[in-house]
Amino acid sequence: MPPREISVRTDLALEAHQLAQRSTPNIPGVTTDVDAQEQLTVTRVVVKTESAARLLGKMQGTYTTIEVPDLRRKDPELQELVTKRFALELEPFIRVPERATVLVIGLGNWNVTPDALGPLVVEDLFVTRHLFSLMPEVVNDGFRSLCAVAPGVLGLTGIETSEIVYGIAERVKPDLVIAVDALAARSIERVNSTIQIADSGIQPGAGVGNRRKALNQDTLGVPVIAVGVPTVLDAATIASDAIDLLLSHLEDKVPGNGAGKILNQFSHEEKRTLISEVLQPLGNNLMVTPKEIDEFVEDVAHMVAMGLNMALHPGMTYDDAMTLTH
Amino acid sequence: MPPREISVRTDLALEAHQLAQRSTPNIPGVTTDVDAQEQLTVTRVVVKTESAARLLGKMQGTYTTIEVPDLRRKDPELQELVTKRFALELEPFIRVPERATVLVIGLGNWNVTPDALGPLVVEDLFVTRHLFSLMPEVVNDGFRSLCAVAPGVLGLTGIETSEIVYGIAERVKPDLVIAVDALAARSIERVNSTIQIADSGIQPGAGVGNRRKALNQDTLGVPVIAVGVPTVLDAATIASDAIDLLLSHLEDKVPGNGAGKILNQFSHEEKRTLISEVLQPLGNNLMVTPKEIDEFVEDVAHMVAMGLNMALHPGMTYDDAMTLTH
Amino acid sequence: MPPREISVRTDLALEAHQLAQRSTPNIPGVTTDVDAQEQLTVTRVVVKTESAARLLGKMQGTYTTIEVPDLRRKDPELQELVTKRFALELEPFIRVPERATVLVIGLGNWNVTPDALGPLVVEDLFVTRHLFSLMPEVVNDGFRSLCAVAPGVLGLTGIETSEIVYGIAERVKPDLVIAVDALAARSIERVNSTIQIADSGIQPGAGVGNRRKALNQDTLGVPVIAVGVPTVLDAATIASDAIDLLLSHLEDKVPGNGAGKILNQFSHEEKRTLISEVLQPLGNNLMVTPKEIDEFVEDVAHMVAMGLNMALHPGMTYDDAMTLTH
Amino acid sequence: MPPREISVRTDLALEAHQLAQRSTPNIPGVTTDVDAQEQLTVTRVVVKTESAARLLGKMQGTYTTIEVPDLRRKDPELQELVTKRFALELEPFIRVPERATVLVIGLGNWNVTPDALGPLVVEDLFVTRHLFSLMPEVVNDGFRSLCAVAPGVLGLTGIETSEIVYGIAERVKPDLVIAVDALAARSIERVNSTIQIADSGIQPGAGVGNRRKALNQDTLGVPVIAVGVPTVLDAATIASDAIDLLLSHLEDKVPGNGAGKILNQFSHEEKRTLISEVLQPLGNNLMVTPKEIDEFVEDVAHMVAMGLNMALHPGMTYDDAMTLTH
Repeated sequence: MPPREISVRTDLALEAHQLAQRSTPNIPGVTTDVDAQEQLTVTRVVVKTESAARLLGKMQGTYTTIEVPDLRRKDPELQELVTKRFALELEPFIRVPERATVLVIGLGNWNVTPDALGPLVVEDLFVTRHLFSLMPEVVNDGFRSLCAVAPGVLGLTGIETSEIVYGIAERVKPDLVIAVDALAARSIERVNSTIQIADSGIQPGAGVGNRRKALNQDTLGVPVIAVGVPTVLDAATIASDAIDLLLSHLEDKVPGNGAGKILNQFSHEEKRTLISEVLQPLGNNLMVTPKEIDEFVEDVAHMVAMGLNMALHPGMTYDDAMTLTH
Repeated sequence: MPPREISVRTDLALEAHQLAQRSTPNIPGVTTDVDAQEQLTVTRVVVKTESAARLLGKMQGTYTTIEVPDLRRKDPELQELVTKRFALELEPFIRVPERATVLVIGLGNWNVTPDALGPLVVEDLFVTRHLFSLMPEVVNDGFRSLCAVAPGVLGLTGIETSEIVYGIAERVKPDLVIAVDALAARSIERVNSTIQIADSGIQPGAGVGNRRKALNQDTLGVPVIAVGVPTVLDAATIASDAIDLLLSHLEDKVPGNGAGKILNQFSHEEKRTLISEVLQPLGNNLMVTPKEIDEFVEDVAHMVAMGLNMALHPGMTYDDAMTLTH
Repeated sequence: MPPREISVRTDLALEAHQLAQRSTPNIPGVTTDVDAQEQLTVTRVVVKTESAARLLGKMQGTYTTIEVPDLRRKDPELQELVTKRFALELEPFIRVPERATVLVIGLGNWNVTPDALGPLVVEDLFVTRHLFSLMPEVVNDGFRSLCAVAPGVLGLTGIETSEIVYGIAERVKPDLVIAVDALAARSIERVNSTIQIADSGIQPGAGVGNRRKALNQDTLGVPVIAVGVPTVLDAATIASDAIDLLLSHLEDKVPGNGAGKILNQFSHEEKRTLISEVLQPLGNNLMVTPKEIDEFVEDVAHMVAMGLNMALHPGMTYDDAMTLTH
Repeated sequence: MPPREISVRTDLALEAHQLAQRSTPNIPGVTTDVDAQEQLTVTRVVVKTESAARLLGKMQGTYTTIEVPDLRRKDPELQELVTKRFALELEPFIRVPERATVLVIGLGNWNVTPDALGPLVVEDLFVTRHLFSLMPEVVNDGFRSLCAVAPGVLGLTGIETSEIVYGIAERVKPDLVIAVDALAARSIERVNSTIQIADSGIQPGAGVGNRRKALNQDTLGVPVIAVGVPTVLDAATIASDAIDLLLSHLEDKVPGNGAGKILNQFSHEEKRTLISEVLQPLGNNLMVTPKEIDEFVEDVAHMVAMGLNMALHPGMTYDDAMTLTH
């Protein structure tokens, strides 16, 4: 049967890989590595070649994904487990000396709940860069120089986010940039239950809103780690899933006869047209989120900030982070 | 072909009627009345008999719906037009003398943006009940005695919303209660562009959350007007629409042959099963909203509060309302 | 020298007693009990007679005050110590059986930061009353039936707070009511560093705003515990302190001569006039708060909610409360 | 009698001038110009010489102050009057061509209500810079290229505000910068009722928080207009006023005798000591604000944003601004 998937948007390399595999079972230039634990699964996808990158629609680089199906339940022990694992997975991405300065960029629009992850993380971080001159005795031991900014979105500032970040980076001269952003997932069960870490930076057009120019080593001159959590689902996903499911269902019903032929003829184009008809008149402006998104985004922002604090400040334990993360 | 619609939830009587009409073209006991203007359409649906009420899943009563396709564009002239028309349509529902006391109940959860309509309206109202004793000279002329409460939701208070409302109503002894609530629509284009006024009160289970006991003349002893705006879409709607569209599409493709038969056999039950499979694992916990829901809910809450202020305070002009609505 | 103190407002019985003692060293009908620890001091003031109540301007009853000079520093170990001690001090006030229903009332205006303590505590509580019918297996062991409401203020609702509380209490029929409110202190060092527990309920006119009718055993028919934290200082306090200090200073300078006489003639009335002249034109509408009031109110609301959760739910440990307090 | 005033902080040049005049009646190098209307008074203070600047503690430049005693009453007609006058007074400060790009900087901490003026103004502005490339037909006529950023405060970002502004300005290359900030006033009646416009930029240490490096023509290379509204009062002001008033009072009481001598000996140093003793232990961390500060700051931020929109976009009328200001 020909592949039915059309380009429903996902910001997760893990999902992009799974979708691509449906039509191309063994994609050359991609390696994956899975560590499945009882409560969480960590998958590392490495996109090694330019052609693999094109096929997946993801830049070359390493993508670590932590999936925690029960993360939406507010279980503090699980939150501790996830926070610590996130800090641990983050560490190999941070290839800068202890004396380095790290700039965290919280992307997104603080006025739109599912897009507010980045700004919320920035508010929660334990920033220290200013303390190295003001109170060196407090930070000299065990702290990296950390600063953080939420640059807002184009519609709020009139300035491309990338321009603001370039301008600040030129003054601050960080050794490493970490960009935190809300993502869109392809799969319902990954919304609000997944954290992705990537060393490829942020590409144009990714994320919930539109942020044009790239934030990566090419544009900033230093490594850029992207940390993201899917907080919304593309509405097209639901329509697409319904169509796929119905088509399989009908095929099962009439395995040996003419209907199979009809379905085979049902093209990508037709599916795309159907989906956009279903989503009229709001189209891309629709988002699908769980009802408790307000509460969840705050919780996961806190976990991400905790993990960043722990991974960036070498002397900070989980208990310290509980205290010093706002 | 047998009807395909399954019970996707809608809180709009207008939509419930349209859906029911697909299978039962002329429903006895329901009258409708349409006033289509250039920028808005006002429809009055009157559910007159118990059997019609059962068929539509809506209580007997009068439902006035103002549909404004362009309401999501923030056009202040259109907002003024809608506010004034809403106030005008509200007036025949308010069958109490000028000296009456009106209690507005803002239902919903202020922490969840699309459910916050009711509490936001309550914050915006020009309440006057306390001024009749404290500063009678300010309110004696042209103002009704107005008070307003947002009782919260069960998960926040541990108390049924209806219990809180009954308790307050027993002390305040209003002559009229108006309950304001966020609704779910069946149709994407009605989300955030429709206001419904009904004289049937609020029924158990309606609204975005779950609020158990009815607020109506039976339980409160005085007329209860319900004012609602759909702010979310049931996620099942998207799956259901996609399935319907695909089925019609396939039928068109193979009009004269066996596929038609297969599709005829595709039952309500199968469709329901497909939809719930698509929406796993988040199911009813998913909501579909436009991205700018935060901004929209504030705007529409302001319009509803303006219209309530104008309709309830007989001496209040649009300009007065602009001043006195918070 | 005659007493110089005029009636600068304090909601703390401890301060009212200290002020009264300046003119009447041993006030009959009042007993005090002090437990001074390293980081906190717990004082119990019992007002036993009607005449003592009149002299102090506080109702008869028991007032426990926990003073924690360093509470404004965000030290999590100290916060834990204070939370546990608060829960401990609260327990003897809760003289109801385990099967009892407790209603917490969060007084104050959520739109005004220093007055938002009560509503914030209510949002943080672990309410359970509804679970006893919905999920009895979750709550049957170790939980009391707890419900909570923030009734708003007169200017927002048009309804006396007391009317709303009476109405809800009539439906909920609690065995105990706990009213949480922001207070005004007389002394700068007690702002944001003190928690008061009282068994005398809430009197008209207390608190930051104006809430008219009493919430106490007389009006509600069940015991009413008041829990309060001073979040503001009366601006008159600063003027009054400055005047007192200057007068002592001048007396010291000219101990043996005519100036003493002048100062003796400086009456309460003159001082009151001076103060109100200083505070013109904003007078009583001024509040004095520390700059970080926003952050502090959230922190202390969390501690109070934690303590209430621990004291009210017998099976709840500190760790449970960390998890279940929002 | 020697001058009694000590350096109580004010950010208003008008007040600094009035205070300085108490000891130096005719200050050379300062001109003032008053236009007293029924509801508002506009005063222009020009500080022309370096020595006058030192005496006043204000940079050389022009300071226009609009005082509106009734601004705290929410009268929409007065708000319209003030908004229009503010736009009018702003215009002569804006000495750039219509094709120029203007960058507005909203200084202050959005988490602290009285310090949130700048960020709130930024959220309300009608930014257009991005539209000149995306939708030129919308903005080509009557709009200037406007962009706006709220850079946060040092404690939130770890980066000096000035560094962030310099970095952004280097990318955006504005022709004019306007910095909006909350101020501290010396006089109670000017809090929340005054707008100051200055062409001298922002100096180190001004404003409610501490922002170190200057934003002015020297550092940014383009003109910098500062727009400020006093939202707090220095708590020392109240103590200082009380002391002054008491001293005058005592002098009046004993005009001809030894007390006068005592009072003359009461030095600046002694007063400063007294004040800091009164304000212990919170000292400079105390702020004095009206109770309705939350509501007021939102209102005045809206007026300032309206006026900026009108003055910066030449084709924008008051009605346009009502529509386009968020």
